[in-house]
Amino acid sequence: MDYNKILEEIYKEILPFSEKGHQADYIPALAKVNPDQFGMCLKTVAGEEYSHLQADTRFSIQSITKVFALAMCLSLKGEELWKRVGKEPSGTAFNSLVQLEVEKGIPRNPFINAGAIVLSDILISSLEDPEGDFLRFIRELCDDESVDFNMEVAMSERECGYLNAAIANLLKYHGTIENDIERVLMFYFKMCSVEMSCRELARAFTAFTNCKPFDFAGFKLSQSRIKRMNAVMQTCGFYDEAGEFSYLVGLPGKSGVGGGIVAIYPMRYAVAVWSPRLNSKGNSVMGMKALELLTTATQESIF
Amino acid sequence: MDYNKILEEIYKEILPFSEKGHQADYIPALAKVNPDQFGMCLKTVAGEEYSHLQADTRFSIQSITKVFALAMCLSLKGEELWKRVGKEPSGTAFNSLVQLEVEKGIPRNPFINAGAIVLSDILISSLEDPEGDFLRFIRELCDDESVDFNMEVAMSERECGYLNAAIANLLKYHGTIENDIERVLMFYFKMCSVEMSCRELARAFTAFTNCKPFDFAGFKLSQSRIKRMNAVMQTCGFYDEAGEFSYLVGLPGKSGVGGGIVAIYPMRYAVAVWSPRLNSKGNSVMGMKALELLTTATQESIF
Amino acid sequence: MDYNKILEEIYKEILPFSEKGHQADYIPALAKVNPDQFGMCLKTVAGEEYSHLQADTRFSIQSITKVFALAMCLSLKGEELWKRVGKEPSGTAFNSLVQLEVEKGIPRNPFINAGAIVLSDILISSLEDPEGDFLRFIRELCDDESVDFNMEVAMSERECGYLNAAIANLLKYHGTIENDIERVLMFYFKMCSVEMSCRELARAFTAFTNCKPFDFAGFKLSQSRIKRMNAVMQTCGFYDEAGEFSYLVGLPGKSGVGGGIVAIYPMRYAVAVWSPRLNSKGNSVMGMKALELLTTATQESIF
Amino acid sequence: MDYNKILEEIYKEILPFSEKGHQADYIPALAKVNPDQFGMCLKTVAGEEYSHLQADTRFSIQSITKVFALAMCLSLKGEELWKRVGKEPSGTAFNSLVQLEVEKGIPRNPFINAGAIVLSDILISSLEDPEGDFLRFIRELCDDESVDFNMEVAMSERECGYLNAAIANLLKYHGTIENDIERVLMFYFKMCSVEMSCRELARAFTAFTNCKPFDFAGFKLSQSRIKRMNAVMQTCGFYDEAGEFSYLVGLPGKSGVGGGIVAIYPMRYAVAVWSPRLNSKGNSVMGMKALELLTTATQESIF
Repeated sequence: MDYNKILEEIYKEILPFSEKGHQADYIPALAKVNPDQFGMCLKTVAGEEYSHLQADTRFSIQSITKVFALAMCLSLKGEELWKRVGKEPSGTAFNSLVQLEVEKGIPRNPFINAGAIVLSDILISSLEDPEGDFLRFIRELCDDESVDFNMEVAMSERECGYLNAAIANLLKYHGTIENDIERVLMFYFKMCSVEMSCRELARAFTAFTNCKPFDFAGFKLSQSRIKRMNAVMQTCGFYDEAGEFSYLVGLPGKSGVGGGIVAIYPMRYAVAVWSPRLNSKGNSVMGMKALELLTTATQESIF
Repeated sequence: MDYNKILEEIYKEILPFSEKGHQADYIPALAKVNPDQFGMCLKTVAGEEYSHLQADTRFSIQSITKVFALAMCLSLKGEELWKRVGKEPSGTAFNSLVQLEVEKGIPRNPFINAGAIVLSDILISSLEDPEGDFLRFIRELCDDESVDFNMEVAMSERECGYLNAAIANLLKYHGTIENDIERVLMFYFKMCSVEMSCRELARAFTAFTNCKPFDFAGFKLSQSRIKRMNAVMQTCGFYDEAGEFSYLVGLPGKSGVGGGIVAIYPMRYAVAVWSPRLNSKGNSVMGMKALELLTTATQESIF
Repeated sequence: MDYNKILEEIYKEILPFSEKGHQADYIPALAKVNPDQFGMCLKTVAGEEYSHLQADTRFSIQSITKVFALAMCLSLKGEELWKRVGKEPSGTAFNSLVQLEVEKGIPRNPFINAGAIVLSDILISSLEDPEGDFLRFIRELCDDESVDFNMEVAMSERECGYLNAAIANLLKYHGTIENDIERVLMFYFKMCSVEMSCRELARAFTAFTNCKPFDFAGFKLSQSRIKRMNAVMQTCGFYDEAGEFSYLVGLPGKSGVGGGIVAIYPMRYAVAVWSPRLNSKGNSVMGMKALELLTTATQESIF
Repeated sequence: MDYNKILEEIYKEILPFSEKGHQADYIPALAKVNPDQFGMCLKTVAGEEYSHLQADTRFSIQSITKVFALAMCLSLKGEELWKRVGKEPSGTAFNSLVQLEVEKGIPRNPFINAGAIVLSDILISSLEDPEGDFLRFIRELCDDESVDFNMEVAMSERECGYLNAAIANLLKYHGTIENDIERVLMFYFKMCSVEMSCRELARAFTAFTNCKPFDFAGFKLSQSRIKRMNAVMQTCGFYDEAGEFSYLVGLPGKSGVGGGIVAIYPMRYAVAVWSPRLNSKGNSVMGMKALELLTTATQESIF
């Protein structure tokens, strides 16, 4: 498969969409990113890397970080984890409080904000140095020691993070989080503030392609568990657009409001794409389109 | 892969669950089925069939029929279909009216009752002989001319089908269905009343494994479209338990309240399992467990 | 109090609103009413009648009929009635199915459509000749033998009454109505189709001012019960605008989509007003304004 | 009317209910109150006071305070106030976030927590010394300089006030509150922490009986505005039980989780009752019963 050529052709085809959508602007750090950027990197399980344009530019991974947090929690808690958070698609927008209220504080899945805030709480309760362990984990995953939190982004998100603060308070009210609300929120925002490039994300996510044992910085997952993580990504990774992504792309994946999307073709490759402009559901316009074209061109999808 | 042995071992392992759950009893025809039955049949794309116990006993396929209706509608309407029905998981129970109301009459996906009622309406509008065409289609799919509606079941469902009548009226109110409500409901209930065995279902669903062109009784689907149908099954096929099924089994599939479940391993096999006792979400207890064990034992899943 | 002069002045003040809003047009019979009409009639407990303009033109009373149905049911069932229907404000639009679903088929109050459909069911179960008894009751209330159903309106409402049919089916599903759905709906639509003038409504509603024993066509209510009926009108009589009406007018009342509104000043008077153009909540624009001005001018309200 | 005798007889009749219900125990200060207490005081517009048992024991007035806050806001903002908060009954429990979310941050009415938090925000923005002005206002209303906040209660409520913090954050997210969240919450909790006796509440609420100009500590309300405040109390004062209270008691009123209830008979009297044990809706069991018996015995209600 000539992935280099495919990536090039994909880019040509999605160029007409390059001005569609709006980048996230709820915090200054995201608002000031040049929206006219696009990067893509595909890494196969054999170790080959194919990339295009700004594949080495770091951006705010935002919700993509939830996959890392889930991997750590599953490693620590195993199936017990699902007593604290569900694994059903939410059927409503990612930040909905309604569903949280209806279901007595148990978030529908780990990829809505409420779910990821519970993951933060679990990591804080389980680890002596949650921030340190988290960084060690993702640095080993992408094999780059310079990956780090962007504290300016994290502080800025906390400052205007009224909705997430509402969610955290509601979870606390229902007894679903154990630790101090501010501690939980700050750790959550720090994890979201991590900056990585498409290449680093592609490298990190090959660990979830399931072709060899998963053991990073002491966090281990069985092959069966990785399959299951991918299943959760497939059904819940794109908020209110999980069905659409599954339909058009046919791979498990996760998006972030920074414009990044990662997808996994089990046993074959991981692919990351980035472009800041988002559609109305909060997913990168060019990123969605690029991945749709990738699986169409390669005829490779899980279905 | 010695599927015969695997099916046997699965059965032994799920025996402890044989009295768990309750069969559907909202109509007499379903209530009088002997609940102590179990059948399973796996058919590979190479044409081999592996079966266990009551694999040739016919049962009411109920919601599994929605996959056939979707295939016909996609063949007739193509991507235009998605203007009439969504493809996002519902996030609530299969018979919820709430979400229908919120989204102005557009059902979330074709596998909730509201969605399938819209499919019925489309088939009635598009075909001169909807009942005849439907039967020709599924008979060719499973290669058995004796497959038929059970009119007693259909009439009985209509008689006590207050909730579906409520849904149909609500759809009509929103202008989402074109034809007479009674006509649409009767066709819907007839399609649900079809009786097939596990073997027949496994045969029919190998058509969706996507290893050769799909063309049955004049209804054609491209490979890309079949992939997409499977994606919808994956995210929406199990009502409020789609995430759980995806997590435990890792295959696209569809269940029915008659106790049947069909799953597809693209390019490999289709498998049908049947046992009447249902869990609280309306899915066969032994069926769910059997499929979980199948993909665990074979290590074969899409993830 | 010179009510004649007050009515005249009110009319002058509301003239600027005479083209605001839109008359109901979901059935031909309502759509063809000349919208440029206004009538008002106030009848005191002493028997004096004050009227203005088209006070003797009959119009479709629609939901105002629910008050008559409630009076009959309370007379027949007493406090037992509240096991079948609630008495809390609905907090959502009058035709919402959501709340019905959430509360397992018990409508929030007798003045939302679901509640009135339950009242219809109760009357059918309790009376040998529901239609006859209903007509006898309202004819005696307004002292006019010619008041009657408009069968053309009733049939027309049934024909396009998908939403009410959805509600009735949902109630039947929950076991909240006993009789055949069509029977219940037809009786409901007949009651809504009654035509009365402002004068006839004012006369009928003086019976609820509570200044003498209530006993009409064999239906009796104690003074305490009438007080309570008025309390329900106060909190639930205006769908999603009950608070607004209570705030601006300060009297218990009931509106109908035909443009009529009736209000009661206990121990003093009943007043009916009619003008077909409705605001976005389904209440007569000029009617609401006229009653607001009435209680402002007279300084008479229950608060 | 021999109110002394009526109060005595009411007490005898409600004695069988003296152990029904549970006092609020979510903060220590409320949990440690002796639940076996009952007080009642009725004050007529002529100035006569009738009281029974612990009518002079102070208790935490909690949500009753919202009436004072509303009076101040209406005096400051007039009808403009209703752009910030609605006046429709909520139709759901007092602490529901669902409805808040659906309606984009505009609380349904000033008596649900979200509404009262908005009132707090308005007072902070409008007054130089909100706490001082609030105390001056209520002290003048009940003519007692010793009425005060209970800071231990206020701090304790803030500490475990996760739900109210969630609400405040959600309001801030929607831009409905202007000031710092902590500032708004603390002022809200201070207002709720005020302790008054039944006698003091009855005295304070005679100001709302509307028999003379309202002018206290510089906060003035026209008679028309007081009528309207009473209308809002009538439709929204009892959370999910507003219809029930209106039905059984037939007077505008407001309850608090401390077990107090105040009701107003316009132009006649104000009455306060207190007993700590609450029903499932959060209203005093004996208090509700006592007021029902009062209006039944006196035949005095607004309907």
